[in-house]
Amino acid sequence: MPERIYNFSPGPGTLPQEVLTQAAKDIVNFNDKGIGLIELSHRSKEFMAVYAEAEAGVRELLEVPDNFKILFLQGGASTQFAMVPMNLLGKNQKGTYLNTGTWAKKAIKEANIIASAEVAYSAEDSMFNHVPRDSDYTVAADSEYLYFVSNNTIYGTQFKELPKSDKMLISDMSSDIMSRAIDFSKFGLIFAGAQKNMGPAGVTLVIVREDLLDRVADTVPTMLRYKTHAAKDSMFNTPPCFAMYCVGLVCKWLKANGGVAGMAKKNAEKAAILYDMIDSTPFYKGHAQKDSRSLMNVTFNLPTPELEVEFIKQGTERGLDGLKGHRSIGGCRASIYNAFPQQGVLDLVAFMQEFAKANS
Amino acid sequence: MPERIYNFSPGPGTLPQEVLTQAAKDIVNFNDKGIGLIELSHRSKEFMAVYAEAEAGVRELLEVPDNFKILFLQGGASTQFAMVPMNLLGKNQKGTYLNTGTWAKKAIKEANIIASAEVAYSAEDSMFNHVPRDSDYTVAADSEYLYFVSNNTIYGTQFKELPKSDKMLISDMSSDIMSRAIDFSKFGLIFAGAQKNMGPAGVTLVIVREDLLDRVADTVPTMLRYKTHAAKDSMFNTPPCFAMYCVGLVCKWLKANGGVAGMAKKNAEKAAILYDMIDSTPFYKGHAQKDSRSLMNVTFNLPTPELEVEFIKQGTERGLDGLKGHRSIGGCRASIYNAFPQQGVLDLVAFMQEFAKANS
Repeated sequence: MPERIYNFSPGPGTLPQEVLTQAAKDIVNFNDKGIGLIELSHRSKEFMAVYAEAEAGVRELLEVPDNFKILFLQGGASTQFAMVPMNLLGKNQKGTYLNTGTWAKKAIKEANIIASAEVAYSAEDSMFNHVPRDSDYTVAADSEYLYFVSNNTIYGTQFKELPKSDKMLISDMSSDIMSRAIDFSKFGLIFAGAQKNMGPAGVTLVIVREDLLDRVADTVPTMLRYKTHAAKDSMFNTPPCFAMYCVGLVCKWLKANGGVAGMAKKNAEKAAILYDMIDSTPFYKGHAQKDSRSLMNVTFNLPTPELEVEFIKQGTERGLDGLKGHRSIGGCRASIYNAFPQQGVLDLVAFMQEFAKANS
Repeated sequence: MPERIYNFSPGPGTLPQEVLTQAAKDIVNFNDKGIGLIELSHRSKEFMAVYAEAEAGVRELLEVPDNFKILFLQGGASTQFAMVPMNLLGKNQKGTYLNTGTWAKKAIKEANIIASAEVAYSAEDSMFNHVPRDSDYTVAADSEYLYFVSNNTIYGTQFKELPKSDKMLISDMSSDIMSRAIDFSKFGLIFAGAQKNMGPAGVTLVIVREDLLDRVADTVPTMLRYKTHAAKDSMFNTPPCFAMYCVGLVCKWLKANGGVAGMAKKNAEKAAILYDMIDSTPFYKGHAQKDSRSLMNVTFNLPTPELEVEFIKQGTERGLDGLKGHRSIGGCRASIYNAFPQQGVLDLVAFMQEFAKANS
């Protein structure tokens, strides 16, 4: 096997090598049972144990209270944009949304198809380079919830504190789940696609307060009701077994590596190294405002688009892969999720110094 | 690695060993690129090639005409029960359904949530032990389609010929896709969860006639419109990358093993061995009527429930795993999908002979 590259991709993204090695073994012969993991019936006692381990892993790491159900669903966060209002809003009810980027906008669009979205704040005019402060918006008294995207992958912004509101919070945490603790007392529901910080693509984690499950109308298709999946421990139909299994492995790895608190510390260190580099020279310019900077996705520009192209090309040649920014804002982006090793950040910084020197 | 067991599970089910071995390698280091398959960005050229190969594999094997789109979706066949009427029926339109078992019933339930289902035939009174003949039902003139489940996993029945109708056919082929040729000229849409005959759980294949894509109303959530996924080649959002990749590998394996025609021949041989055994002694009793017998799932009973428990137990001990029938009908079931080796069927028959002799 050649050397492993550093994968700065925004998702699917890098995973712990231990997880990959274990998965490779289990796929061919699970627990030496003479059957591959992905051939196991989801009703077998072997797979039920896999499910139980993933559920318990998430619950322990995130300290999920007993009155919240942990669901492993399909369809990605994009399906949650519709399921949240389908399950939580009646036809004449509304939810309040903070528009901090592409994924928030998509959620707003779906809420308006199903019920009504009040957009209390939009950062669109400033190219989504920040998240709002509490004083920047108000939430209508007759709104059912306040929805926000905790980390904006594309723009590289992140809420440092939970938005304050007397409404329950709903959050899309796809790109920073498991990177810090969550105060569930403020939340009605959180969700996250696994493929950034928690596993491979193909499973979406939903953690929902149990008393909300009965809100859903019987005009909602069975598979789109949280209640359906909660009642059957995510086994109403065949679940995405392999992706669930990987989430369980990632949880084990997280636990062995300091848990969510340990990750928060390491992530802060990794991000500081990179932001310090960016701030040390006018050659690089961070996209996000300083107090909104994401610890997961570091977005920056070079003096010209041509230099950015060259930078990304040379980076790839050196095994620093996936540094291209999202097509909607261009520039560069380094995604440094939980499983991304600090050495990769140090190598990137060394390359950035070299590249700036050669091209200034 | 210990000996590989024979996995008679109805799904997730047995997969070709070559597929497992290749997946194990690629998960750690894809194409020797120093990055794991499940870490690849779905927008990377490496993964785009994986997608293209899977799409082309399905198209070639099933001879899918150019005017049909091949989609790789999430949510399982159970989500398709709702998506079919959501996309194909207006509020005052109806589809016609043949109720041949649990999965048909679930599809009927969802169609009635969204629009209206006409049940033209039900085999429920006879414990779903057969599929109807064309003369057994009529389809209303104002119906939009005729929906049927091509193979009924739980009851072990299968349509040998396509139901005749001047309406377009819609079919849930989850448990016999890729086991025989499909005459697409009769179809509007087919779908199939991958985890029985085509790959691991987590991806659902939908093949839909392009002219039907525009039927969907804009009140349907974006992710539930076929049109959304068709316009973006199943990459509107992050797809279930690993499961798609495996479908591509299975297609390669199928091609190397005689394609769909080769499988049809082998499947007929395997099933004949088992049904001949069942018919050779009154000790075993097939559940399905002879002309409705499935080549994929062979359901049968023993003289008493106690003997069935003992049979399943002894089978498991001999490495003949997953022989327990579905809880809704009990008894025994041997699922012998494409990837199930003939030797496993021969071993099962030898065990059945021995068990009958010892317990008659």
